[in-house]
Amino acid sequence: MSQILKGMRIVEGSAFVAVPLAGMTLAQMGADVIRFDRIGGGLDAKRWPVAPSGQSLFWAGMNKGKRSIAVDMRAPEGKELITRIITAPGEDAGMFLTNLRVRGWMDHETLSKHRADLIMVTLMGDRHGRPQVDYTVNPALGIPDITGPEGYAEPVANALPAWDLIAGNMVVSSLLAAERHRLRKGEGQDVELSLKDVAAATLGHLGMIGDAMLNDDARGKSGNALYGAYGQDFLCADGKRVMVIGLTGRQWAALVKVTGSGDAIDSLAAQTGLDLKEEGVRWALRHQITEIFKPWFAAQNAAIVGRKLDEAGATWSHFRTVKEAVAEDADLSTDNPMFEMLHQPGLGTFPVPGAPMTFSASARKPAAKAPVLGAHTEEILGDVVGMDDTEISRLFDTGIVQSPNFAVSRHVA
Amino acid sequence: MSQILKGMRIVEGSAFVAVPLAGMTLAQMGADVIRFDRIGGGLDAKRWPVAPSGQSLFWAGMNKGKRSIAVDMRAPEGKELITRIITAPGEDAGMFLTNLRVRGWMDHETLSKHRADLIMVTLMGDRHGRPQVDYTVNPALGIPDITGPEGYAEPVANALPAWDLIAGNMVVSSLLAAERHRLRKGEGQDVELSLKDVAAATLGHLGMIGDAMLNDDARGKSGNALYGAYGQDFLCADGKRVMVIGLTGRQWAALVKVTGSGDAIDSLAAQTGLDLKEEGVRWALRHQITEIFKPWFAAQNAAIVGRKLDEAGATWSHFRTVKEAVAEDADLSTDNPMFEMLHQPGLGTFPVPGAPMTFSASARKPAAKAPVLGAHTEEILGDVVGMDDTEISRLFDTGIVQSPNFAVSRHVA
Repeated sequence: MSQILKGMRIVEGSAFVAVPLAGMTLAQMGADVIRFDRIGGGLDAKRWPVAPSGQSLFWAGMNKGKRSIAVDMRAPEGKELITRIITAPGEDAGMFLTNLRVRGWMDHETLSKHRADLIMVTLMGDRHGRPQVDYTVNPALGIPDITGPEGYAEPVANALPAWDLIAGNMVVSSLLAAERHRLRKGEGQDVELSLKDVAAATLGHLGMIGDAMLNDDARGKSGNALYGAYGQDFLCADGKRVMVIGLTGRQWAALVKVTGSGDAIDSLAAQTGLDLKEEGVRWALRHQITEIFKPWFAAQNAAIVGRKLDEAGATWSHFRTVKEAVAEDADLSTDNPMFEMLHQPGLGTFPVPGAPMTFSASARKPAAKAPVLGAHTEEILGDVVGMDDTEISRLFDTGIVQSPNFAVSRHVA
Repeated sequence: MSQILKGMRIVEGSAFVAVPLAGMTLAQMGADVIRFDRIGGGLDAKRWPVAPSGQSLFWAGMNKGKRSIAVDMRAPEGKELITRIITAPGEDAGMFLTNLRVRGWMDHETLSKHRADLIMVTLMGDRHGRPQVDYTVNPALGIPDITGPEGYAEPVANALPAWDLIAGNMVVSSLLAAERHRLRKGEGQDVELSLKDVAAATLGHLGMIGDAMLNDDARGKSGNALYGAYGQDFLCADGKRVMVIGLTGRQWAALVKVTGSGDAIDSLAAQTGLDLKEEGVRWALRHQITEIFKPWFAAQNAAIVGRKLDEAGATWSHFRTVKEAVAEDADLSTDNPMFEMLHQPGLGTFPVPGAPMTFSASARKPAAKAPVLGAHTEEILGDVVGMDDTEISRLFDTGIVQSPNFAVSRHVA
């Protein structure tokens, strides 16, 4: 069995989260993904988090399993080289992902002159082509206003770059859809999407645009409560915190039963005249429900609470710090076949994830390291561009390309 | 031009966010997506937000452009019907998405006896098959611990179901990759992924697992600051708030220039002996930097601030509530070709988004309404299962299927 996208070749000119994640996801499914960067590294070469050495853990995380080439793109010869790599022949090649939005030599119109069936996927900031990032799209659409403790006066941003992560996965879907079309019709595509449109569409998908337009009451902050039904965090006797879910009827019944709250919940229903089998009622009465459940959690340690919740078939989890999760949760360790323990030069040794999906008729690609910047420059010039050793040496000598294996006279940061 | 996935047929048995979103994304790219539900509606039929009528805006948002069939799956004949729909012939059919995880009649082993090249994508809670939801995966992995105001003692959950949204898009990619393989090799696939694995892998991709293992200092909460470089929210004279970004060198230079802070930033560099061109230094000195910038924002209204930031080429945005965003932002209106103003029966009239990506050689599908539950029952029994009118009438008469167009004698909620 080979990996599901084995044989496909993608070229990526990118920085930061979304497009690097897209390329990496394709690489983890078996595609040959070539990321090109300027000499010295792209805009995200030093992005945090960093290892004790100061080298970027983020870059290593986002570029796993890719091949890397470093090219001086200010030089005409560097531009030509990138053009040849992007538009190199091959039935399963001619695919380019980017968020760099370089007009002229690197746009779809120009590149497709060199390969008519080129598929290019461009992620922009907004639909007008203006720069936007996860940290600006999020407040513009109101998510920080509904995030945070109930009653807290200020907006609270996501720590997770959720829009970037969603957009990156949509870049993957777009590429695969466009390649499916090309396989059938022979046509290339210029595919465009923007981070802000991804977020705006998602707001609509979640029903939030209709909610904002049709309902007078604006949705407020609700702390760690599950919106629109029941779900809440509780402190246990040992100060540890758990999250419990009462979204479906089954989950709700399990929660009422395990906490021994049947009579109290019945009294609440009688007193309010409301049916707590309705999720909207549980949402409206969430504070009263939480007061009923609270003593059960406060009376015992989290380990006991967890065991009882498991026995009752409840849906729940611990609250952990990232350090605790990495130290304690087997799902974040090599006990999980998704992870490999790898040593990455300059960084250290830690569990590195492969792709989360498994295909029964295709092999899972073991998690791979990220390349050192420019590590595959020489081999890409050979096997993709088709250059001979003399041509390749000349490019290194003139500083048009760079790799960690070749000493060069000038270093451009 | 037709839509990029025109002709593809997907069957979806699902509830809540991730898998419904996956099916809808494929429908918005032109696929014929059939969602089946039990009679009376699935677990998410009443999910919040809801319209003033009490009907679910969420369900309408997540099921746009699909066909809907309602079947009594407790009856053997209902199970057989669903099996026939999932495994119906057609080169571009035989694809099934689910998060219901029904063992026996609806698992891959059983279904693939009816169609050997079936592609089935199953999203689970965790890799062990246990139920987990966005609201439990998130605290288990530590995101709420790093979210929220600096110094705030408690975990702060995401208001956005980010993991569900990411996982849903990975379901789309997985399906398209599996179908590509089937087109070439004729083989079906049993594809599995879990919400928790998606989250665990993402933590690794972002460098957070390495950070937690290699660095002694745990990443803390940092409010609305951009992690690892510079980006911060500021209050303007009129009490409105803006977010500004100083992640790249160009963004940082624009920010220093527009706020007239060159001398103050130079003094800070001299005083600390640090180079603020390094993003990690800007992160370490972010509070001092913010104090330098603050008076410029506080001295003028947000409209003026915004105009000056635009002129300076800065990357920035307003903070808005969702209601303000929907009322004020043209990107959330029909000024954006992604949106259509649609009337949805029982809900109301509001802008409804289509897919955020555009394909130059394929048509964009205009945003479509969600079906009423069971609206396509009759036509699906005809055009997919190939039943004649007599057979179809019998199924309605016996209550095995239901549609809003047929009166039925028994109603099972």
